[in-house]
Amino acid sequence: MTPAAQTAVACADAVIGYSLYIDLIAPLLRPGQIVEALPITQERQRAERAIELAHWGLTVAVVSSGDCGIYGMAGLVLEELQRMSWDGKTPGVQVFPGITALQAAASRVGAPLMHDFCAISLSDLLTPWEAIEKRLTAAAIADFVTALYNPRSQTRTQQIATAIAIFLKYRDPNTPVALVRSAYRQDEHITLTTLSELLAAPVDMLTTVLIGNQSTRTHADWMITPRGYLGFGEQSGA
Amino acid sequence: MTPAAQTAVACADAVIGYSLYIDLIAPLLRPGQIVEALPITQERQRAERAIELAHWGLTVAVVSSGDCGIYGMAGLVLEELQRMSWDGKTPGVQVFPGITALQAAASRVGAPLMHDFCAISLSDLLTPWEAIEKRLTAAAIADFVTALYNPRSQTRTQQIATAIAIFLKYRDPNTPVALVRSAYRQDEHITLTTLSELLAAPVDMLTTVLIGNQSTRTHADWMITPRGYLGFGEQSGA
Repeated sequence: MTPAAQTAVACADAVIGYSLYIDLIAPLLRPGQIVEALPITQERQRAERAIELAHWGLTVAVVSSGDCGIYGMAGLVLEELQRMSWDGKTPGVQVFPGITALQAAASRVGAPLMHDFCAISLSDLLTPWEAIEKRLTAAAIADFVTALYNPRSQTRTQQIATAIAIFLKYRDPNTPVALVRSAYRQDEHITLTTLSELLAAPVDMLTTVLIGNQSTRTHADWMITPRGYLGFGEQSGA
Repeated sequence: MTPAAQTAVACADAVIGYSLYIDLIAPLLRPGQIVEALPITQERQRAERAIELAHWGLTVAVVSSGDCGIYGMAGLVLEELQRMSWDGKTPGVQVFPGITALQAAASRVGAPLMHDFCAISLSDLLTPWEAIEKRLTAAAIADFVTALYNPRSQTRTQQIATAIAIFLKYRDPNTPVALVRSAYRQDEHITLTTLSELLAAPVDMLTTVLIGNQSTRTHADWMITPRGYLGFGEQSGA
């Protein structure tokens, strides 16, 4: 979380968020603030409630995990405002970026994101599975370092297997893969594995999966994607 | 910059970085620290110097702009250590993520990164241009929200034109595009445009280009990518 985001939360009249995240920012809250902790599934309701309070003239902080602009709450608030024929100015909106899961995960295993990368969510609740499959195929062929968000849930277990099968079609089975669960939290769990062994590795809904590109190597407990792609340009000392 | 990164800089015995970034973190520095500001092109020398000081037993902070793990200095330090048959433990390494250009840019125009996205650097100094073109084509076809890093330099002006031509082959010419230059700095400059008008718009080496996906819309001065892809799943109220 950046100091700017911390200040925004501390200065707000009202703070709205999923109850777990409200607990995490508890040290920033102060007496007199309206604090509304809502259940995990009610994202749209949280956005609506924030706008309602803002229309009363309150400054409202909507708390999101990671980066609120990456699969987070910022888009829901703006979508909701757009639906209400918002003029873009009243209520005023400011988006404070944060560290998203792929960055937190990457930082714990070294530097896997030193070259072109993409993020793909395997959740097909709001995206047709064919669109997700198309992106997995494109990422595999074009050799992006790839971060998989929402790789698996209790009911959704087939998607990660299909993703692995797609990658194995185009990539070396020994491609390094990092699994980072709950980065920076007390129950953090890190696994370095390979594409061919990924299916047997522990992946759940709190895990971020990072698949390297053709240049990515592991060294001791680290995963490193060189800046020069497949050695290109390094001879010149650039 | 996160509080964790600020603390790491403040606690270090030595701080190394490109001179402009050293100026930006000047308020964090304290008397008695070794501070080495090096010119912009000498990334590898900065990594070598940091390792040299670390071998003397000093705690060294290597400062990078944005996220040091995304096209930044973290990879160079780890690559250099790897070359020296490092055991992965001594010297110890910690990577502190930060806000990368695509997040800073996105936050200033709304929420364009609410769906699957990718980052592609148009610099062909360390990557063969064919690999970059392959990624541009994949990103355009698979409808990723796409961030272009290093879109143009004084000598490198053709790459952005080729990138636009590739996108226009597969995407609607009215696809929203945001150009964000020097996000959060005094000379910040933001332009909302479209794919077909991008070539005429102001793009330089300090600009991040964000190209929307098929769902992305502009509303007043905002760029919003809905969470539901092309309206999928929204009827169910998910």
